[in-house]
Amino acid sequence: MSAIKYELIKKSSDCDARLGKITTPHGEIETPIFMPVGTRATVKAMTPEEVKDLGAQIILSNTYHLYLKPGHDLVEEAGGLHKFMNWHGPILTDSGGFQVFSLGELRKIKEEGVEFRSHIDGSKHFISPEKAIEIQNSLGSDIMMCFDECVSYPAEYEYTKQSMERTTRWAQRCKDYHKNWDNQGLFGIVQGGMYKDLREQSVKDLLEMDFSGYAVGGLSVGEPMEIMNEVLDYTVPLLPENKPRYLMGVGSPDYLFEAVIRGIDMADCVLPTRIARNGTAMTSQGKVVIRNAKYSRDFSPLDPECDCYACKNYTKAYIRHLFNVDEILALRLTTIHNLRFLIKLMENIRTAIKEDRLMEYKEVFYKNYGYIQD
Amino acid sequence: MSAIKYELIKKSSDCDARLGKITTPHGEIETPIFMPVGTRATVKAMTPEEVKDLGAQIILSNTYHLYLKPGHDLVEEAGGLHKFMNWHGPILTDSGGFQVFSLGELRKIKEEGVEFRSHIDGSKHFISPEKAIEIQNSLGSDIMMCFDECVSYPAEYEYTKQSMERTTRWAQRCKDYHKNWDNQGLFGIVQGGMYKDLREQSVKDLLEMDFSGYAVGGLSVGEPMEIMNEVLDYTVPLLPENKPRYLMGVGSPDYLFEAVIRGIDMADCVLPTRIARNGTAMTSQGKVVIRNAKYSRDFSPLDPECDCYACKNYTKAYIRHLFNVDEILALRLTTIHNLRFLIKLMENIRTAIKEDRLMEYKEVFYKNYGYIQD
Repeated sequence: MSAIKYELIKKSSDCDARLGKITTPHGEIETPIFMPVGTRATVKAMTPEEVKDLGAQIILSNTYHLYLKPGHDLVEEAGGLHKFMNWHGPILTDSGGFQVFSLGELRKIKEEGVEFRSHIDGSKHFISPEKAIEIQNSLGSDIMMCFDECVSYPAEYEYTKQSMERTTRWAQRCKDYHKNWDNQGLFGIVQGGMYKDLREQSVKDLLEMDFSGYAVGGLSVGEPMEIMNEVLDYTVPLLPENKPRYLMGVGSPDYLFEAVIRGIDMADCVLPTRIARNGTAMTSQGKVVIRNAKYSRDFSPLDPECDCYACKNYTKAYIRHLFNVDEILALRLTTIHNLRFLIKLMENIRTAIKEDRLMEYKEVFYKNYGYIQD
Repeated sequence: MSAIKYELIKKSSDCDARLGKITTPHGEIETPIFMPVGTRATVKAMTPEEVKDLGAQIILSNTYHLYLKPGHDLVEEAGGLHKFMNWHGPILTDSGGFQVFSLGELRKIKEEGVEFRSHIDGSKHFISPEKAIEIQNSLGSDIMMCFDECVSYPAEYEYTKQSMERTTRWAQRCKDYHKNWDNQGLFGIVQGGMYKDLREQSVKDLLEMDFSGYAVGGLSVGEPMEIMNEVLDYTVPLLPENKPRYLMGVGSPDYLFEAVIRGIDMADCVLPTRIARNGTAMTSQGKVVIRNAKYSRDFSPLDPECDCYACKNYTKAYIRHLFNVDEILALRLTTIHNLRFLIKLMENIRTAIKEDRLMEYKEVFYKNYGYIQD
């Protein structure tokens, strides 16, 4: 069980934020970190070199999507996901659970696993905990995730309890099936919805299995921010100090701050890349909706404080023009900017933890920026 | 009249190909050259740095499209097209004539100019020779083109004659209106369809006006290759040796060879970038239609002889996967490859002229490659 190592470097004095380092078979990751998402073996609109140049240290890719297309067996034949997609840094793969459960009517949950129909062609499939590990073994990611059920919000206590207990049983099966611990770590996923006793039970059971790290799942699924904060407040302190902690599906600056000050080390989300392709930039002055007519003759960069390629070389007027005529470069430039914005934010957060002034930095940032909630 | 200078370096002994150098306000261009097209102030899917890294020395942009969106006045306010789009090398702009005449029913030709409706919103516009120059002056391109009528193929003698004579009168008006000769060259466009006496007359009249260079227009409009070759055979030798010669709208390897051996220095076409986005790669072994099932587990590059980023880092299987799931990187990689393929071809052609073995190289290339005719 040595593929993944976590080293705690420093703790904040006025919150639970922590500076750390994760060692993986494909390199080290400084935490807290934001992980860009490369759903289908590519971070949308980007080359791997560009993603790396932005300062990204790890990316996430999706088991469900790669299982359907091009197929995990093909990726394995290609030499694994790193080689297939030309990204030679660390990769985390999810378990496919979230996507499968999002299929709603198209899936049926059983103790053995989940039966579902492909969202592409309606073909029938079955993913069990063992299958999820088998797929991730084929992909060869540095960090794999246990197959879990992500319960939607709101959910009844009784259902949430049953689901969490099944997720725990599935976690054990994932662990038992995984044979490649030297090259691939495996994270357990804490579930239990918005119920404290269920979260506590989930953590307790998972800790006994001793995973490479722990994710807090089932958050950022539509609940108010206060509830997410509350769940993190009572869940994260239960997690061991010597393992990385990953909050799934969070990628807006305010949520990232709230998570980090509660002790989260890793987060991922399609938000920055998705809103980029819709023409929305995250900037130090708040959101910029680039199609807005007021930018038609604005010859300043998207964000005057940003050091990215888009901001150093192009104006709002130009990027707006590119969006207006459906040019691919529009999506590229805005994606570059949004990813750099979040990666730079996490760099600043790490520096602030190091200098023990994170809460102060948070206040300044919020004042300039305001909230993004998409 | 000094913005554009042409220097003849070497002539082939067994054909009319010539090695040369064009000096422009934004740098030098080695000829013969292929010019990537950046219709709407961007070479589709590419950054300017990427275009430059492929070896492109000049790009083409479109007056008609930029006039409609974002408007030439906005581009001028942005500091000109070079600054607006972040391309600091030479730019050639067409006159808008070709696009306007392609509108068919939507346009009406008068002696004064052409009245037309926008293909975007149906709004009414009028472009005269003077207006075409005014727009290109605002854009600030290094090489501007005279406003001409590109007659379609086939066309009657009488109409072709009238049209050519009007194009000649418009050329004089373009020349008279242009005031910025120190910073922007202006090329005349030879018309006259497939009629030798009309081409001769067109050349004779244009030469009297003494332009910075001469384009052969009205070719590659659907005529068989033999006819294009024939027109070039009797037209190009009439053009002065000390000015660049530009064949408009040609971008397949075979057409480029045929043009170059007849003394053409410059060519442009959307072909390589357009077919790239449809999933077709030009390679040293002929066309590769990447969506073809036979490539699903082909872990070799698009073209084993190519030195581009796509071929050095990705397999056919990966690029095919990207096309299958509609990823932008698919378009980027194939565009990079096709542009590099043509630019490299032109590099090889220049070397072959230098070593006086162009006809030999042509034969070898054709044998491996076959024709592309899209």
